[in-house]
Amino acid sequence: MSDHMLRSAEHRLGDLGLVLPPAAAPVANYIAVAKMGGLLVVSGQLPFGLDGKIGPRHIGKLGAGVSAEDGRAAARACALNVLAQVRAHLGSLDPVGRCLRLGGFINCASDFKELAQVMNGASDLIVEVFGDRGRHARSTIGVAQLPLDAAVEVEAMFEAAL
Amino acid sequence: MSDHMLRSAEHRLGDLGLVLPPAAAPVANYIAVAKMGGLLVVSGQLPFGLDGKIGPRHIGKLGAGVSAEDGRAAARACALNVLAQVRAHLGSLDPVGRCLRLGGFINCASDFKELAQVMNGASDLIVEVFGDRGRHARSTIGVAQLPLDAAVEVEAMFEAAL
Amino acid sequence: MSDHMLRSAEHRLGDLGLVLPPAAAPVANYIAVAKMGGLLVVSGQLPFGLDGKIGPRHIGKLGAGVSAEDGRAAARACALNVLAQVRAHLGSLDPVGRCLRLGGFINCASDFKELAQVMNGASDLIVEVFGDRGRHARSTIGVAQLPLDAAVEVEAMFEAAL
Repeated sequence: MSDHMLRSAEHRLGDLGLVLPPAAAPVANYIAVAKMGGLLVVSGQLPFGLDGKIGPRHIGKLGAGVSAEDGRAAARACALNVLAQVRAHLGSLDPVGRCLRLGGFINCASDFKELAQVMNGASDLIVEVFGDRGRHARSTIGVAQLPLDAAVEVEAMFEAAL
Repeated sequence: MSDHMLRSAEHRLGDLGLVLPPAAAPVANYIAVAKMGGLLVVSGQLPFGLDGKIGPRHIGKLGAGVSAEDGRAAARACALNVLAQVRAHLGSLDPVGRCLRLGGFINCASDFKELAQVMNGASDLIVEVFGDRGRHARSTIGVAQLPLDAAVEVEAMFEAAL
Repeated sequence: MSDHMLRSAEHRLGDLGLVLPPAAAPVANYIAVAKMGGLLVVSGQLPFGLDGKIGPRHIGKLGAGVSAEDGRAAARACALNVLAQVRAHLGSLDPVGRCLRLGGFINCASDFKELAQVMNGASDLIVEVFGDRGRHARSTIGVAQLPLDAAVEVEAMFEAAL
């Protein structure tokens, strides 16, 4: 496991066979990443796939059509989009010092309780890529709806070398 | 458009004919703006109008009584309240370096999908006032309920000169 | 009231007869507190009691089984868990300079409006312990569901001496 610390995040991505989706362009008057000093604030990302679309199994509500397994995959896809935005902003993932926080929003029926398990799809991906530097604070909540009826949305804060 | 960069935010407000509502006093043990170094954290703001009240068209749920157009106006009103709080804290909007982040919470029916369009009311206002320095990271979610049954709540983070 | 400022947060806890619950270990690939410079980001905390369990009156939805009074107590319990995490991370509450922000998520029926009153349970606790340095920016929203069907979840940001 300590190899995580010795290899760069970009190398880790390659080791893991992960390909990032295209960085989605915000469709309105906002930006994907805002930076203040070494703090990167990443806009909430939806589970767009490599084709720039949200797959049908990642649309809708957990507990009302979307399975926990598909939700977990959607959270992982959101995290890949977070990384795509960070890479687009910095040119590489390697200036990232650490992941400070993930915020996970799960589109769910009001009786769906396995929110943490769904959000683990995002947390696990970040730790796979950054190792211990990927361990983050996190808040997970179940919401009434998300843009485009996406099953999951993930926002993030990272620390980056200036 | 580049005039945005040359005129101060306070001048832009005047150019736009915008009048900020009174800065609403928090009704409990919290404050409207907390500052750490150059980082301003602004409490979630509701769409209070110039009379200090939430208009009837800005109360209730999107997709269940409140139209998308009224929701968009409510989001804009929330953003005006954000600016009122920042001005009350700093004495002027002009020390603001940039808007880092807006968080948008939309009180909605569980099948209402046009969340981004509603939230654009807030994002557009911030960019009208600050120009490119107003472009922010953003997360938009649909929630089950908001304080006072407001249709929209907007929180924010800004960078300000010390 | 000015005594608040003169006594340390740890002394205030003792004065108030408050005992912090055990700091709950995150059950997945995340951590309870992430730090960047003097900024502490605390993961969303649930209302675990001193026995490490969520009491039955702090499970379920406000406006659909959980009373506003119990919700307020649940919010206070969440804030005690926030403090437990900060103390576990720093070794003491005394390096805390101030509370910057609380985010309150209330698990509620879609027509429950007294969100602010519930969240006051958390805000009041933080101000009891830190005095004026505990006054924070805050966002309160009503959500469709929370992990473990908890009635309330509270996340936080603090400023701490390096």
